[in-house]
Amino acid sequence: MNDLIATYYFKPKAGVTPEYAAQAISEEQTTGTWTGISTVNEKTAYVHAYDGEVLELAPSGSGFQTKLSFPYEIFEPGNIPQYLSVVAGNLFGLGKLEAVRLLDIEIPKGLDGTGPKFGIEGIRKICGTETSRRPHVGTIIKPKVGLNPKDTAEVAYEAALGGVDLIKDDETLTDQKFCPLMVRLEMVMDALERAKEETGREVLYALNVTTGGDRILEIASNAVKAGANMLMVDVLTAGFSAVQCLASEPSINVPIHVHRTMHGALTRNPEHGIAMRPIAKLVRVCGGDQLHTGTVSGKMGGKADEILGDNRALTGPAGKLLTVFPVASGGLHPGKVNAEITTLGNEIVLQAGGGIHGHPDGTAAGARAMRQAVDAALAGVSANEYAKTHIELQKALDIWGSV
Amino acid sequence: MNDLIATYYFKPKAGVTPEYAAQAISEEQTTGTWTGISTVNEKTAYVHAYDGEVLELAPSGSGFQTKLSFPYEIFEPGNIPQYLSVVAGNLFGLGKLEAVRLLDIEIPKGLDGTGPKFGIEGIRKICGTETSRRPHVGTIIKPKVGLNPKDTAEVAYEAALGGVDLIKDDETLTDQKFCPLMVRLEMVMDALERAKEETGREVLYALNVTTGGDRILEIASNAVKAGANMLMVDVLTAGFSAVQCLASEPSINVPIHVHRTMHGALTRNPEHGIAMRPIAKLVRVCGGDQLHTGTVSGKMGGKADEILGDNRALTGPAGKLLTVFPVASGGLHPGKVNAEITTLGNEIVLQAGGGIHGHPDGTAAGARAMRQAVDAALAGVSANEYAKTHIELQKALDIWGSV
Repeated sequence: MNDLIATYYFKPKAGVTPEYAAQAISEEQTTGTWTGISTVNEKTAYVHAYDGEVLELAPSGSGFQTKLSFPYEIFEPGNIPQYLSVVAGNLFGLGKLEAVRLLDIEIPKGLDGTGPKFGIEGIRKICGTETSRRPHVGTIIKPKVGLNPKDTAEVAYEAALGGVDLIKDDETLTDQKFCPLMVRLEMVMDALERAKEETGREVLYALNVTTGGDRILEIASNAVKAGANMLMVDVLTAGFSAVQCLASEPSINVPIHVHRTMHGALTRNPEHGIAMRPIAKLVRVCGGDQLHTGTVSGKMGGKADEILGDNRALTGPAGKLLTVFPVASGGLHPGKVNAEITTLGNEIVLQAGGGIHGHPDGTAAGARAMRQAVDAALAGVSANEYAKTHIELQKALDIWGSV
Repeated sequence: MNDLIATYYFKPKAGVTPEYAAQAISEEQTTGTWTGISTVNEKTAYVHAYDGEVLELAPSGSGFQTKLSFPYEIFEPGNIPQYLSVVAGNLFGLGKLEAVRLLDIEIPKGLDGTGPKFGIEGIRKICGTETSRRPHVGTIIKPKVGLNPKDTAEVAYEAALGGVDLIKDDETLTDQKFCPLMVRLEMVMDALERAKEETGREVLYALNVTTGGDRILEIASNAVKAGANMLMVDVLTAGFSAVQCLASEPSINVPIHVHRTMHGALTRNPEHGIAMRPIAKLVRVCGGDQLHTGTVSGKMGGKADEILGDNRALTGPAGKLLTVFPVASGGLHPGKVNAEITTLGNEIVLQAGGGIHGHPDGTAAGARAMRQAVDAALAGVSANEYAKTHIELQKALDIWGSV
């Protein structure tokens, strides 16, 4: 059987050798503990089949990088919380370490899942971009919370008219009284239907069904029956299983937009926690069709090489698994579109919230400006040049500038 | 209605005033975004009812501490993933901040849950310690993984004979082929029954049913029907809803032991991430009956004042919610028992894995040594003094010493 390989960065405490520290992580996460134990004896020597192994160890930055191998057999196939308990469990508290960060995992056959139902190709087909291959443009309804269903639908209508491919709820909007989920869904889908009559274009609406894994399938099923064409799940707050149970249910025949709120608590410290890479790989295994991986120029802008690598983990080969459409979101506006496309390529969803609804002429104009910025980038023309003949883009650049 | 209050530590980036930074967190998590938006206008001015508020702001360490108020109405009662998206969401990625840490939350009436079914009193009643009020002693079956069900049951039998109140699976052991969950349950419960015939004592076995929220209730129900007297859930990997759905189901009439593997990824950096306090409060709301909060002297030893505060959040008044039994675990052995009790008091479960199974005379002797160490502490006698007439304790101190 193939083992699961995990790569860590770590910094041992003073007086602890890197060899000892790497071995301590390996033991803590497999068959060991801090002292010799009577329950591992001649009779139970068979447990050593489940020992981990330190495959590689080398200096890295101000610490070390190590590759550990965890035996296939210690995993419960499909139980992602259990996978995390091994690769991202107690090791974060080990007293021998100053800091430790899970950088990457290689998930072997047998521990991978069924993956996305739609992936990039499925989503492009819905939106009619399978030939053009242009980046998708999305928007988040803003303000994050507070709008009633009618006003939410109005914003969605304007955005759809302006040319977005995707409209999504913000991550804190689920099923509150001021905007009940099913009422919102009905009114937004009606609005998108009206827009379609005018534009002929199908627009996805990612309804945020985030809730506990015990209730999400019921809520999602009701939403799909009522006409939802996309669902949104916050994978870190609701758990990987919340995505997994939707993706593995045949009747949920719409793509799943995966948000990652709270990730910064895990990912932000470069020496400790969990990098985005393993999270991205697990989302693909669990069947997310779109996943936020960050922008290179937005309000939460990240490192280009890391984000590119995360996106490749979503779009590169992975056995029989379909691809996941990477989403760049957070502080984007038309003046940043060229930088995003130049770095991240065309297989990307560029999402703007304030960068669309903050347009001086409103949401539809803001959406047009984003689409114009994409067109400019694809034509190899600077945004400022393109704006000379595209008034919406010009007005966006006037207030936000370009990078 | 009562709002939810959240307390943060943060460090603004150079050039950002603390007032601006605190306001940015408040806006990002409620109605704001990084730019003015057309969708907040005269017609939609009603959304300002959902604005957050900065209640307090003061210097703290090398940064600042702030108390923010989030309107009751922006929460979906009972949806813990949604609560997290507000109090522990995108703010961790804000570019204006070097670091930010969620320190505490005050959960108002209406957003709290039904809480534990058993709590400390219910668990003490099962174990017959409601009068003595002595600290409970628990053990984790070691090695973490690898033992077959028969050998697992043998370890449990020895530990029960030795006098533990609680035996638990380690966090990486769920339902793997080498030790299937239902087979393990049956053999361990048989072993505990045999031990009870000899000792007359009821011992709890926390069977690790950790898996996604979509499957956990079914697995837990089967386990309870087959005789499980306690269930274990890893709350951070499986999600708060995994605990919540078990606690709110009347037929799950056994206490829930809540483990927190992966917490170090969130809690360890003192300036960033999520402190244990809000996690503890949410576990109580969700209905965990026992929760790991750490040791003051173990291999993952934490700061005494923080752990004491976390334990008070579990055991102090909280409306109609029952208490949660705090668990100290990680590198404990008999020589550390006095330090733990002196600092953390008697309303505590002292768990030792290696510190029991590593005893030179085996698991039963190791359990006896732990109980003797507790007796010594309660009698106000030093472990070394008590060991003169208690051979198991003496042998434990001989190899591990005492602090």
